[in-house]
Amino acid sequence: MIKLNGIFPPLPTSFDENEELALDKLNNNIAALSRYNLSGFLVLGSNGELVNLTEEEIRNVYAAAREAIPKNKIMLAGTGAQTTRGTISNSKAAANAGADAVLVLNPSYYKNQMTQNVLVTHYWSVAEASKIPVIIYNMPANTGLDMDADTIVKISEHENIIGMKDSGGNVVKMGDVKRMVKPEFQILAGSAGFLLPAFTMGAVGGILALANIAPKKCISVYDDYFSGNIEKAHKTQLELIPINAAVTSKWGVPGLKAAMDYVGLFGGTARKPLLPINNEIKKQIIELIDILGLGAH
Amino acid sequence: MIKLNGIFPPLPTSFDENEELALDKLNNNIAALSRYNLSGFLVLGSNGELVNLTEEEIRNVYAAAREAIPKNKIMLAGTGAQTTRGTISNSKAAANAGADAVLVLNPSYYKNQMTQNVLVTHYWSVAEASKIPVIIYNMPANTGLDMDADTIVKISEHENIIGMKDSGGNVVKMGDVKRMVKPEFQILAGSAGFLLPAFTMGAVGGILALANIAPKKCISVYDDYFSGNIEKAHKTQLELIPINAAVTSKWGVPGLKAAMDYVGLFGGTARKPLLPINNEIKKQIIELIDILGLGAH
Amino acid sequence: MIKLNGIFPPLPTSFDENEELALDKLNNNIAALSRYNLSGFLVLGSNGELVNLTEEEIRNVYAAAREAIPKNKIMLAGTGAQTTRGTISNSKAAANAGADAVLVLNPSYYKNQMTQNVLVTHYWSVAEASKIPVIIYNMPANTGLDMDADTIVKISEHENIIGMKDSGGNVVKMGDVKRMVKPEFQILAGSAGFLLPAFTMGAVGGILALANIAPKKCISVYDDYFSGNIEKAHKTQLELIPINAAVTSKWGVPGLKAAMDYVGLFGGTARKPLLPINNEIKKQIIELIDILGLGAH
Amino acid sequence: MIKLNGIFPPLPTSFDENEELALDKLNNNIAALSRYNLSGFLVLGSNGELVNLTEEEIRNVYAAAREAIPKNKIMLAGTGAQTTRGTISNSKAAANAGADAVLVLNPSYYKNQMTQNVLVTHYWSVAEASKIPVIIYNMPANTGLDMDADTIVKISEHENIIGMKDSGGNVVKMGDVKRMVKPEFQILAGSAGFLLPAFTMGAVGGILALANIAPKKCISVYDDYFSGNIEKAHKTQLELIPINAAVTSKWGVPGLKAAMDYVGLFGGTARKPLLPINNEIKKQIIELIDILGLGAH
Repeated sequence: MIKLNGIFPPLPTSFDENEELALDKLNNNIAALSRYNLSGFLVLGSNGELVNLTEEEIRNVYAAAREAIPKNKIMLAGTGAQTTRGTISNSKAAANAGADAVLVLNPSYYKNQMTQNVLVTHYWSVAEASKIPVIIYNMPANTGLDMDADTIVKISEHENIIGMKDSGGNVVKMGDVKRMVKPEFQILAGSAGFLLPAFTMGAVGGILALANIAPKKCISVYDDYFSGNIEKAHKTQLELIPINAAVTSKWGVPGLKAAMDYVGLFGGTARKPLLPINNEIKKQIIELIDILGLGAH
Repeated sequence: MIKLNGIFPPLPTSFDENEELALDKLNNNIAALSRYNLSGFLVLGSNGELVNLTEEEIRNVYAAAREAIPKNKIMLAGTGAQTTRGTISNSKAAANAGADAVLVLNPSYYKNQMTQNVLVTHYWSVAEASKIPVIIYNMPANTGLDMDADTIVKISEHENIIGMKDSGGNVVKMGDVKRMVKPEFQILAGSAGFLLPAFTMGAVGGILALANIAPKKCISVYDDYFSGNIEKAHKTQLELIPINAAVTSKWGVPGLKAAMDYVGLFGGTARKPLLPINNEIKKQIIELIDILGLGAH
Repeated sequence: MIKLNGIFPPLPTSFDENEELALDKLNNNIAALSRYNLSGFLVLGSNGELVNLTEEEIRNVYAAAREAIPKNKIMLAGTGAQTTRGTISNSKAAANAGADAVLVLNPSYYKNQMTQNVLVTHYWSVAEASKIPVIIYNMPANTGLDMDADTIVKISEHENIIGMKDSGGNVVKMGDVKRMVKPEFQILAGSAGFLLPAFTMGAVGGILALANIAPKKCISVYDDYFSGNIEKAHKTQLELIPINAAVTSKWGVPGLKAAMDYVGLFGGTARKPLLPINNEIKKQIIELIDILGLGAH
Repeated sequence: MIKLNGIFPPLPTSFDENEELALDKLNNNIAALSRYNLSGFLVLGSNGELVNLTEEEIRNVYAAAREAIPKNKIMLAGTGAQTTRGTISNSKAAANAGADAVLVLNPSYYKNQMTQNVLVTHYWSVAEASKIPVIIYNMPANTGLDMDADTIVKISEHENIIGMKDSGGNVVKMGDVKRMVKPEFQILAGSAGFLLPAFTMGAVGGILALANIAPKKCISVYDDYFSGNIEKAHKTQLELIPINAAVTSKWGVPGLKAAMDYVGLFGGTARKPLLPINNEIKKQIIELIDILGLGAH
């Protein structure tokens, strides 16, 4: 059983100036971040631009990341495609590359058809076919579809489905899921904006874009909460809200990449249509980073 | 300065079989609930059917409630109307009746016109005219309008505005507000579904429909959190989710009133168009109450 | 049977500089607009600020309007309150004042409880109690609640319910309603933005904010469509879109009132929290009016 | 300049029992439908499951379809991917295969980053690189993102962008776009549910899922409207609403495929996670088809 406790950064995928994969840059980022007490890494989540890569590129990223991620760190791989077969294919590739578990975003294009039955059948088919455990990924801000507690609980019944990353921020739902799932099911917060509240609802960790640029701060919320230092966790949690919003909901992957450039990692550009943030926003982000005293990695 | 720490039940307004005010029943409820360590009561919030009463009835409820609420308990009075003048008129009446503070729901009918400027001007006019402090009330599920953090923070700058009840459940926003407002501004959770997460974001208490039927459990989440007993607070929080949903988002005032009838308070019916819940739902609610071992008051 | 064919302006309610009713100004507006071939008037719809008036003021407006509206013009009166009893009370007052039919906005505060059963029971109770016919009013932009076709069709089965004003702009739903209701049920478009499309789905007329300032243009869309001059109706329809948006969705009642002031009617201010539009927006509205060549009334 | 007047069916992509492409079945459908006075065909739109195919499969469908589509019928090809480079690649492939124009769905995964600037840059880059004209595709029910009139108008300024398919059903926006775009810009209704209303706002035709199973009825709405027979067009329009909803918003691609099986075309199954509709729904669909007297093709 893989333990998902702790903090995981969802790595952005690095591109060169021609929008081609720059795997060396990705590896450098992994090396730099591996010096922190992170539990592992997610490759090809939303911040990893899974939806922007070809099938071949996806496989190349899995392989390169596994090579760069220390053996004692967990590698999670995003594999969700619009089809069940595509998701299974990605999941097998991730397992072959050495990932420890797959993070499966729900299909969402045909929103009206995504009934509980369709979603359960999809996840169970993937779980059945995958050689490594499956983590459910709910990300309504991007998919436009918010899986409800009952659906998540039903999906969780499969023995190869071990947890969920929830980026929606509905903590009531998170608690409702926790209340109903098997005890070993592991919930991960999907954003540093609600990390501490998520812990009080039963989350055991978080996959946090912010952990790419503020790993220590994110880890300290975790450590402080679980060691009973709530007041300090609360203080850090509030501090993290504005910079977290800047690199997630507000400015997205381009914001996160600009922040990474500033703290000494490789950020670079995202694939178009995503455009780099302009200089004014960059200044705002830098200011938020400086306030927190986030030095270079 | 009024301290809003702790748990407040938002009292339903009692009606007889002709849908007329039954103030004696309201008083009995207050008396029964006053035996618990509640910080006070809210009259004429959403659960109090403020929107369903005439101006005269509103004033009658203020007066009756103040008479019934012990002097050492805070009386909060819902006063929000669609107009600024109507809200001011209600707020003056509440102050005259002896309320300690008013809870002001934002106007929401002309949604497209409810700009930050309009809302700030409204709240400041009310705060200026009100002899007692003003608490902002954000209730997007009913108003269809969710005030954002910047708007709330701007509104909070008036010295007679002392806090906010937020029923939206967006804990990131709650933390963002807490981070930016004056230190003495007091945030109250608007639902028992996210009480514990709200505390971690800086809430000092809650106005909770569930506190009408499970006052001890709600108080224990508060006590356990603030005495550092997080694990126990977490456990109670999860327990409260299903019954809380039943008497709020799912079955609303009719659900709450049925639950009150079952635990030995007066529930009765709401004003139409609200219809009593049917027997099957009543059975579900009773089951949820019995699971929690909520005995008669 | 009242025929609702043709164009009805929803009259704004006139206030003086102290926000008190200025019924003489309302009467002047009615007199000025009565020179056009309008089928009648609506008082106390959304543009009439029904939600901003006291019960007594509501009754005063009904009476004053009926006196001012020529006997050969239909008077529709908005009567929808949050309670069934309040709606019935308003409807009886409107009938007593001489209104020809009431326009009943659905209650919407307790959104989650507004099931089909609740809404049907509400409308049927009102229809049963009302001495004059009832028209359903669906206005999702303000209520935050969009009644679906099945609910509307079920409501329409009562013999005293003769039509619907739909301001949502979902023309598919409009067609679906038309397809299923009794043949004599009359559908009215609730905005000049989709007047012509509504006609093709079976609408027989419209209650249009824009008809206060551009009555001739609105009437010409009606006349051209029903006399088979589609091309001309199309041309006028497109022309009306920007000014219609300006006095409805964009700037609301304050926008409409400013436009009325400009075309020689009395606009004045709305009740607060609604604030007057600023000068820049006023200039935009004036420009849109001038483009259309809408002279003074 | 390609004329988009008239009716186009968006062809579903045919699969065998192993979910592999069944291009012969697709060709048979094209042959059967080519007997009607349709203006052309769309391949790989939403109903064509573009999002469910690999890059190679996409190219195979383009080639097979062009071979099957008569030379005098327009071939439109869906090419929208999440990236600009992917969309350009698909568009070049479509042009090489002989498509007449490409239909480009907007990227939508990173919703918060899809600003007007990002969308305009994306569409203009595609239009610049594409050898054949580009048609904008707005499909909010699937993308969760509704491009507004100003954005569409700005995008339309590029000379290689010749029109728009709008499936959102907001006819006011459709009219607003029509009012502001270059005169030769061609608007197509994206659903038979609002075909007739769309014509009154300036649409010149429609790409209609329903045209796969009721081509004659769809064509008759077009013919009747443009020959001035509004009353008949209205009657047919209302008739089409329920069956159209059944094969689009309600039951989606599986519903459409079941309907195609029933009228003598090849429907088959969609790719999972989409599941076949159950027998009860199939019966409902069959009933709706029979009511309309839609015989076998």
